[in-house]
Amino acid sequence: MAATARRATGRRPGDSGAREAILTAARARFTDQGFRETTVRAVATAAGVDPALVHHYFGTKEGLFAAAMAFPFNPADLVEHLLEGGVDGLGERLVRTLLGTFARLGAANPMIALLRSAVGHPPAADMLREFLTGAVLDPVAAAIRVDRPGLRAELCASQVVGILVAREVVALPELRAAETDTLVAAYGPTLQRYLTAEF
Amino acid sequence: MAATARRATGRRPGDSGAREAILTAARARFTDQGFRETTVRAVATAAGVDPALVHHYFGTKEGLFAAAMAFPFNPADLVEHLLEGGVDGLGERLVRTLLGTFARLGAANPMIALLRSAVGHPPAADMLREFLTGAVLDPVAAAIRVDRPGLRAELCASQVVGILVAREVVALPELRAAETDTLVAAYGPTLQRYLTAEF
Repeated sequence: MAATARRATGRRPGDSGAREAILTAARARFTDQGFRETTVRAVATAAGVDPALVHHYFGTKEGLFAAAMAFPFNPADLVEHLLEGGVDGLGERLVRTLLGTFARLGAANPMIALLRSAVGHPPAADMLREFLTGAVLDPVAAAIRVDRPGLRAELCASQVVGILVAREVVALPELRAAETDTLVAAYGPTLQRYLTAEF
Repeated sequence: MAATARRATGRRPGDSGAREAILTAARARFTDQGFRETTVRAVATAAGVDPALVHHYFGTKEGLFAAAMAFPFNPADLVEHLLEGGVDGLGERLVRTLLGTFARLGAANPMIALLRSAVGHPPAADMLREFLTGAVLDPVAAAIRVDRPGLRAELCASQVVGILVAREVVALPELRAAETDTLVAAYGPTLQRYLTAEF
């Protein structure tokens, strides 16, 4: 990952030391103090670099968190991309994207590591909640323009995390064996209903 | 719990030693060999009792597992009770029962302990899958009399475990704050659709 960053930005090899120092400091802060209380400035100070360098490498605090937790993408970017198509068919696009991501990541899925940590350790559950809320659910809630957007986003999260646990962790056999199109036909309307139906 | 069993059956106090020996042997077997491979006979042998005594105390292997994992009820009984009303409105009854059970158990919910163990430890995930399949999903699948019953039961499981994780573990705030009737109105039709709709 450091090598890729060097190639992409044309920076000299020594920079990877600063990048790693930032990630190490970020992991410690996020773990000790949670996502909300952690500031880019505090991480920069702990790593002995200028906050501008943190922004240069990782963009926002969400991007820093995603990199510190070894996400292969920034979930905030994924949400932005999904929302570009509007609310019509959003449930189906969301399921299809998730299933593709899970298939690509397999056992190395960092969402499983976050979940493992959250289930075993209450402060990690707080961190996951703050991150999910800030980076994923609030942007979705702001975009869907319906009543109770926060609840709708969380209903979707409850089905998404359920797919993660039932299919990727517990490996229920029929969910493992089902075609993607079958799962999209089952889960897509659920998420669409959570996003837009009256209840 | 041993005291209750003694009162219920009128057995002498010394019996609680045999009961505890059975539970200890059962926990060890289930953990080492999984739910499917463990037999009541092997547990009885390890505990130094007759298999009939295991059946006397715990009924089926599912009942023994539920007691060993400190479930306050046998999930198989709950499933049987829910299915008595037929498939009509089953999704709604299932959600209402689950939310009531979660509220009653709070942080002492043994499903959270099973989940923690499954997420952190692949053999425990296998055990949870075998137990869920044998004690919960297969009976549901056998009762609903529609195409792809196994997949339908697992789709329901994926939403139920998602409610457990999102609301009880990660404690997403809007799901915590929502009225039971709102959650039943949101989740009930999802489960009903997984049980009966075409896809």
